Amino acid sequence: MQVTELQTLRDTIDHLDEDIVALIAKRFAVTHQVGVLKAQNGFDAVDPSREKLQMARYDKLAGQYGLNADFIRQVFRGLIDEVVLNHKAIAADIGGR
Amino acid sequence: MQVTELQTLRDTIDHLDEDIVALIAKRFAVTHQVGVLKAQNGFDAVDPSREKLQMARYDKLAGQYGLNADFIRQVFRGLIDEVVLNHKAIAADIGGR
Repeated sequence: MQVTELQTLRDTIDHLDEDIVALIAKRFAVTHQVGVLKAQNGFDAVDPSREKLQMARYDKLAGQYGLNADFIRQVFRGLIDEVVLNHKAIAADIGGR
Repeated sequence: MQVTELQTLRDTIDHLDEDIVALIAKRFAVTHQVGVLKAQNGFDAVDPSREKLQMARYDKLAGQYGLNADFIRQVFRGLIDEVVLNHKAIAADIGGR
């Protein structure tokens, strides 16, 4: 019975993982639009003031959801680093800089 | 106008980020249950065969959602490592091993 219980919990985790991947995909679709807008207007791919606001917000969200703030920062640091790489590639394509 | 457009996109990103944090919190709630079940039954915190299945699934999901598979693996590697730490702490608390 406990093996069935374990499998049920794992199925739930697998569904949540797909939901997380789907949200990450949505996030990259929106950040792609940001990248195009930045490149078209000659804005830099990195925006330290925006990142500072985001990091403060992640700390707050981690607190609200009872999660380890360092871990949540690490997750979004990885996402933002990937976005910056994408934005630099978009800027190179558009030739804005 | 483009500054407004940028702000609108950033607001969307902020909402998606909260949804991502909420899903991560749900995922940790479920993996906590898995940790208790494992500790109660004397199962090891690390399960290489389950991890292998998960990694294959993340590659498939990355493909389905048009995302960089290495990046998606990295996100979930971070999540799973955090879960394993939690499971070891639960096992130590319950005294199963």
